[in-house]
Amino acid sequence: MSEIILVGQEVPEFEMETYEPETGKFGTFSLKKAKEEGKWTILFFYPADFTFVCPTELADLAEVYPQLKELGAEVVSVSTDTKFVHLAWHKDEKLLENVKYPMGADPTGAVSRMFGVYDENTGLALRGTFIISPEGKLVGSEVNFYNVGRNADELLRKMKANAYLIGHPEEACPAKWEPGKKT
Amino acid sequence: MSEIILVGQEVPEFEMETYEPETGKFGTFSLKKAKEEGKWTILFFYPADFTFVCPTELADLAEVYPQLKELGAEVVSVSTDTKFVHLAWHKDEKLLENVKYPMGADPTGAVSRMFGVYDENTGLALRGTFIISPEGKLVGSEVNFYNVGRNADELLRKMKANAYLIGHPEEACPAKWEPGKKT
Amino acid sequence: MSEIILVGQEVPEFEMETYEPETGKFGTFSLKKAKEEGKWTILFFYPADFTFVCPTELADLAEVYPQLKELGAEVVSVSTDTKFVHLAWHKDEKLLENVKYPMGADPTGAVSRMFGVYDENTGLALRGTFIISPEGKLVGSEVNFYNVGRNADELLRKMKANAYLIGHPEEACPAKWEPGKKT
Amino acid sequence: MSEIILVGQEVPEFEMETYEPETGKFGTFSLKKAKEEGKWTILFFYPADFTFVCPTELADLAEVYPQLKELGAEVVSVSTDTKFVHLAWHKDEKLLENVKYPMGADPTGAVSRMFGVYDENTGLALRGTFIISPEGKLVGSEVNFYNVGRNADELLRKMKANAYLIGHPEEACPAKWEPGKKT
Amino acid sequence: MSEIILVGQEVPEFEMETYEPETGKFGTFSLKKAKEEGKWTILFFYPADFTFVCPTELADLAEVYPQLKELGAEVVSVSTDTKFVHLAWHKDEKLLENVKYPMGADPTGAVSRMFGVYDENTGLALRGTFIISPEGKLVGSEVNFYNVGRNADELLRKMKANAYLIGHPEEACPAKWEPGKKT
Amino acid sequence: MSEIILVGQEVPEFEMETYEPETGKFGTFSLKKAKEEGKWTILFFYPADFTFVCPTELADLAEVYPQLKELGAEVVSVSTDTKFVHLAWHKDEKLLENVKYPMGADPTGAVSRMFGVYDENTGLALRGTFIISPEGKLVGSEVNFYNVGRNADELLRKMKANAYLIGHPEEACPAKWEPGKKT
Amino acid sequence: MSEIILVGQEVPEFEMETYEPETGKFGTFSLKKAKEEGKWTILFFYPADFTFVCPTELADLAEVYPQLKELGAEVVSVSTDTKFVHLAWHKDEKLLENVKYPMGADPTGAVSRMFGVYDENTGLALRGTFIISPEGKLVGSEVNFYNVGRNADELLRKMKANAYLIGHPEEACPAKWEPGKKT
Amino acid sequence: MSEIILVGQEVPEFEMETYEPETGKFGTFSLKKAKEEGKWTILFFYPADFTFVCPTELADLAEVYPQLKELGAEVVSVSTDTKFVHLAWHKDEKLLENVKYPMGADPTGAVSRMFGVYDENTGLALRGTFIISPEGKLVGSEVNFYNVGRNADELLRKMKANAYLIGHPEEACPAKWEPGKKT
Amino acid sequence: MSEIILVGQEVPEFEMETYEPETGKFGTFSLKKAKEEGKWTILFFYPADFTFVCPTELADLAEVYPQLKELGAEVVSVSTDTKFVHLAWHKDEKLLENVKYPMGADPTGAVSRMFGVYDENTGLALRGTFIISPEGKLVGSEVNFYNVGRNADELLRKMKANAYLIGHPEEACPAKWEPGKKT
Amino acid sequence: MSEIILVGQEVPEFEMETYEPETGKFGTFSLKKAKEEGKWTILFFYPADFTFVCPTELADLAEVYPQLKELGAEVVSVSTDTKFVHLAWHKDEKLLENVKYPMGADPTGAVSRMFGVYDENTGLALRGTFIISPEGKLVGSEVNFYNVGRNADELLRKMKANAYLIGHPEEACPAKWEPGKKT
Repeated sequence: MSEIILVGQEVPEFEMETYEPETGKFGTFSLKKAKEEGKWTILFFYPADFTFVCPTELADLAEVYPQLKELGAEVVSVSTDTKFVHLAWHKDEKLLENVKYPMGADPTGAVSRMFGVYDENTGLALRGTFIISPEGKLVGSEVNFYNVGRNADELLRKMKANAYLIGHPEEACPAKWEPGKKT
Repeated sequence: MSEIILVGQEVPEFEMETYEPETGKFGTFSLKKAKEEGKWTILFFYPADFTFVCPTELADLAEVYPQLKELGAEVVSVSTDTKFVHLAWHKDEKLLENVKYPMGADPTGAVSRMFGVYDENTGLALRGTFIISPEGKLVGSEVNFYNVGRNADELLRKMKANAYLIGHPEEACPAKWEPGKKT
Repeated sequence: MSEIILVGQEVPEFEMETYEPETGKFGTFSLKKAKEEGKWTILFFYPADFTFVCPTELADLAEVYPQLKELGAEVVSVSTDTKFVHLAWHKDEKLLENVKYPMGADPTGAVSRMFGVYDENTGLALRGTFIISPEGKLVGSEVNFYNVGRNADELLRKMKANAYLIGHPEEACPAKWEPGKKT
Repeated sequence: MSEIILVGQEVPEFEMETYEPETGKFGTFSLKKAKEEGKWTILFFYPADFTFVCPTELADLAEVYPQLKELGAEVVSVSTDTKFVHLAWHKDEKLLENVKYPMGADPTGAVSRMFGVYDENTGLALRGTFIISPEGKLVGSEVNFYNVGRNADELLRKMKANAYLIGHPEEACPAKWEPGKKT
Repeated sequence: MSEIILVGQEVPEFEMETYEPETGKFGTFSLKKAKEEGKWTILFFYPADFTFVCPTELADLAEVYPQLKELGAEVVSVSTDTKFVHLAWHKDEKLLENVKYPMGADPTGAVSRMFGVYDENTGLALRGTFIISPEGKLVGSEVNFYNVGRNADELLRKMKANAYLIGHPEEACPAKWEPGKKT
Repeated sequence: MSEIILVGQEVPEFEMETYEPETGKFGTFSLKKAKEEGKWTILFFYPADFTFVCPTELADLAEVYPQLKELGAEVVSVSTDTKFVHLAWHKDEKLLENVKYPMGADPTGAVSRMFGVYDENTGLALRGTFIISPEGKLVGSEVNFYNVGRNADELLRKMKANAYLIGHPEEACPAKWEPGKKT
Repeated sequence: MSEIILVGQEVPEFEMETYEPETGKFGTFSLKKAKEEGKWTILFFYPADFTFVCPTELADLAEVYPQLKELGAEVVSVSTDTKFVHLAWHKDEKLLENVKYPMGADPTGAVSRMFGVYDENTGLALRGTFIISPEGKLVGSEVNFYNVGRNADELLRKMKANAYLIGHPEEACPAKWEPGKKT
Repeated sequence: MSEIILVGQEVPEFEMETYEPETGKFGTFSLKKAKEEGKWTILFFYPADFTFVCPTELADLAEVYPQLKELGAEVVSVSTDTKFVHLAWHKDEKLLENVKYPMGADPTGAVSRMFGVYDENTGLALRGTFIISPEGKLVGSEVNFYNVGRNADELLRKMKANAYLIGHPEEACPAKWEPGKKT
Repeated sequence: MSEIILVGQEVPEFEMETYEPETGKFGTFSLKKAKEEGKWTILFFYPADFTFVCPTELADLAEVYPQLKELGAEVVSVSTDTKFVHLAWHKDEKLLENVKYPMGADPTGAVSRMFGVYDENTGLALRGTFIISPEGKLVGSEVNFYNVGRNADELLRKMKANAYLIGHPEEACPAKWEPGKKT
Repeated sequence: MSEIILVGQEVPEFEMETYEPETGKFGTFSLKKAKEEGKWTILFFYPADFTFVCPTELADLAEVYPQLKELGAEVVSVSTDTKFVHLAWHKDEKLLENVKYPMGADPTGAVSRMFGVYDENTGLALRGTFIISPEGKLVGSEVNFYNVGRNADELLRKMKANAYLIGHPEEACPAKWEPGKKT
């Protein structure tokens, strides 16, 4: 799998080992299983554990996690560190104490390459967010270079819009739309 | 040019014909010129003129345009329609009356293909936003499938963060950061 | 489909979205359907909607349209604009008020390329007219560069000659022939 | 040279042997020479000498030949017969008695192939007319299948329009335009 | 079919349009039919109709034609002119008045190429004579460059020798052999 | 050298060992040398020495040899036997006692292949005669299958015609022409 | 670099980021620099930080590190974790408190692949030890599958033997040799 | 078989002729048979018989051979000499008098190449030791360049650890581990 | 068949025309038939008939021919001359009067190439002797360059040794062995 | 070097390590050096040292060695064993006590492959003898399969013939020739 998936294309099925903060155990994320359960998948890539610049993004994501879950989305944060490192970092870093979503391990870079966020020079992933529909289609992407952080509220807004539209395909969705507003 | 530019890569130089609402004339956007003037470039792709679902995105973008300009960014909206059609639509559609940024014409789809938002089946562009640094590097991307609209305020936030970071490379930028806040 | 169809060759089947001025709705042109209905097809390419130089050609074509229809021909004008733009232009441009034939949309350029009139540099179509027999064979072509306009009366004459010859294959058709005259 | 020249492209230079009715001698047509003399070139292909169906086209062409010449155009009729056969036919066929333009011989089919009118099954040329500008660009083409004859007056009209436009490039040329009329 | 047939090889089946002087009508030569009828085939290529240098060869061939026919051979003269031109020439040229054998038309050059006598520079055939056995094997070839004419009597001698040998395969045929002589 | 030389093409230079009956010694035939001396070359292929069917052809050729020489032609008989075998055969076979021309040895088959008369199944040469002009161009060919013998007088006639024409290129040469006759 | 280096071959030059426990800072290991300083290089690969099974190997290595250094060898432990993770693990894990050698980070797996210890399925490195001479040649390798631990004393013995032999090339080195013993 | 087997990969089955010191006869080592008998295989490569530097390694190996056998391992020493030479050397060299394990002959170098220890320049094998599990997987490798001898006691330790782990897969094996110690 | 057969390889089946001195007729040698009859085959190549240097080799071979036959071997001498030439030479050359073995004709060089004795420059065969076992395996070869003659007695000795060994495969055959002697 | 050298071709230069019985030391055979010294080279391949079947061949060769040397030939016996094994065998085997010629070691099989006597299945050489002229051309080859031994006297005879012929190139050498006899 070396090609990049573009928005609008079907995402090939893949699996990833995870550290699951809620149980403190190791687990596995499977796109196939997410699709079978009718869930949306949100992949949230970041460069590396134990660096000083990322935890706030993950903490913000933790705050909207309950709402994303309610909308039918499974959230997985992803870096190229191992699940052992995720466990250690989660225990060590105070900013992560509210993180409940699975932390995915992509040490081979296979998943990161598939979404075009793998940096061959450093072996790390860029900050990219990807929304996959319950049918397995990539419906949204966002990638930032530098250390420009992402906005978890905006992710929530887009997830809401996607979830709404799938139930109301005949409606067009204007910019900044929020559920309850008319398009 | 058939390859897709990923975040972190250098964008090949290109030109595009435009309709310039401020003067009512036709012009040309040149990435080379933007770089020479030290400007950021924001490309704002949308599917087609004269459809009923997009104008609000363009109107919202019009509202933050003055601020984006102040931050040193040139904004260009892009569809695969011709400049003649842009002119006609701008005159015809009330929602566009405040649009002042150049409206780029990509009838061959060459620019849309370069950023991976060209749909070969319809000849139209997906809703994608791309931020190019004054050095010509792609530093941010966002693409939505379906009719999920974009948030102009979020674009403004990211542009501010990028503009700030370029002057303060040693600072890490946490999520949701706004200028004035500490990282 | 990247090869050019020459006169005398079979035209591969294709479809095109259209704006139908008679009903004010969107439709689809299908070569397969035209063949099944025993109709001739006349494709009338022009560069772009909303330019100042083409409408007279389309208006002239509108005048001979009833006669062409009576001869068993379906006429479709074609540009690389979308059907949305065709609709807008038809409403906006007085010169088009008598246009009743379907206006075909070829935003991907696929149909224009097939007939060798797609200009890769501009994404627009050259002024080309093509006559396809009810069996699907290309029997006539005419292409002009520059802004040399076409003569609708001449098109009518050629269509008449083609229609006559198909019923009288043993007769040779001299130049300038008009029905009723002997060859 | 096996590719077909499309309208808008440069025509590769070529030569052809001719029978020259005005002197009764054999000669040579050279595109290079025509370009050096600033002349337009009109190639008028037809299937074969000594058949019963073509002479009227050539006779009609003979009538407008003086006017075409005045507009700066060199006319050459072309079939895949030899120059010897042209001579014999010209002497034998009454309908050709006013033919004064050079009759080109293309027994190898090289020129016919270049313009896409060579029929590999019969070794004959289709009825095609091609206008080449003094710069050597193909600016007009017309090809008919079956025995649909061409209209010499229409050719004259197009030649006039081309000649006019080259001196007035800023003017758009509406359909059916004739010199003296405004566009 | 672009390969050259050598003596001793099987000739691929082919057809050619003809002008038949005996009936004044057009016909078709078919190698397959000749083989089915158990006939030998003699192909007699020459450059072009209506030239001043060839008719004597064709007239000489006309003189031995009855004898060749009696030996079971079908004779076909071949040039790259059309059957229409053959008809016109036969009527026009006194030297051909005794020609009774079919005159084959090879305007595509396909048959001439097969026997290696097609001149790609001029589109004409060299002076070549080929004898094909009733089984379809090429058993004799003779080709002259320049304007060196062929000897019809010699052709008759070789045809006789071939016809004799096929009935007496055990006999060797010495040079200059004539039937009745012992080998 | 694996391609076959056609009439009208330049013959690549080659050498061949020979037995020279006039001196009883071995020699070498060189096309280069023949060309330098302004000579025509006549190659006379036959299948094999010491068979019962060929010698008469070689004897007939011996009779016209003095006249061919006078016309400026060098004659070489060729088989795939060695020069040793030629010597032995010439001494042994009475029919060859008047043979004075060089007997060429082509044991590798290289020369026979070049003229298309090498039979890969038997390693022998077909009965082929080839005339090469002083400029090195192949101007005449004749090949017979079966045991149809060649006519030395006819060879002489053709050689005379070739020799005459080279000095009178403006004259066309009718069939059966003999020097002294008018064309 | 996708090929595997075998014992006896030259190791291509490479660099690796490191965590340096002695200073608590990040650094860089460079083979080029090691060679310029005349040092031996010992690479000590292990699967992953923060797992429960490896630390004893690293602790044992720490004990012989002073002696290896005295023999002129630079020791670098390597896993595919980042330098940030190495820092975190070193602070967190008691068993590592005596580790003073640089801890190399190979997150892209490039160095691990070069020595054939990269596991494409897991993105981790096998337990492999490699000794590189001051000239850059690979002179020793040892790789264990499963969780079979390595013996630091044996590594010290081999390093001593290598260091001795380089100064006494004429002596053969028997098994189990220790300096001071005769071979 | 030209690829090198890495630790963790399955070893392709192979056979080797041997000299069996215990019986004084020639035999065959077969990996397939070793696997069927549930045995571990230890291959012990060395450069050449009858040289002055190797015998001590083989003698040391002879000392631990009984213990390795008890652990379920078959030991085979291997060089590229023939079995005849092994027999001769074993009889001739006193240091080998206790060698009881089979001495493998690899005169084609096929086995040595498979494990990456064949030196193409000399045709000899490097000093490499390889442990293959009863399932046929390569689980340990060690290769020394120069004349650095191997340590038979260390080999015994690793074999013990491997044998222990296969029965206790859940236990991690720390460095320097010896059976009876806890991990 | 362009590859060379090495000693120890199977010889592909082939046939060759022969002159059979015993009957004075032409025949055919077939390897397939020789194998079916359980015979050994001895091929004895030499350059050419009718040369002054070879006959003694063939005469010597004639002397041992009865003994070779008794050992079950068929002998065939081979040159690239035809069978006609063999017949002529055998009658002409006194030295060959005792030659009774078949004289094989290889005018295409196919058999000579198979055994690597064909000289592409001269079309002749080198002096090579080849022994083929009744199973069709090449078991002996000998080739001499220059005019170094072969020793028929030595050929007889080798044939005896081969014939003996095939019946006593367990015996090794020392140099110079003769039947009756012990090895 | 993977191609086989045929008799008549130039042998590429090569070197081989040797055991030199006369001095008891190791040496090197170099074809380049042999050629510079104007010597003939005789390579005498055999399968393996320490087998029971070959020594007699080597002993016979030893007897004619002084005469071969006198004729200007260097003799080298060759097997794929190492020089160490040659030394050991020479000391051990009584039959070799008179062997004085260098014993070449070809453990990589490179030289054996060059002469087509390497058996890929066993890694041993077939019994082949090769004579190389002082100019480096292969002038004689002999290869035996099975255990058919070679005849040293016959080798001497051939070497004498070669040596004689090189000084008397004009003389043909009949079979069984011995110096002093007339050819």
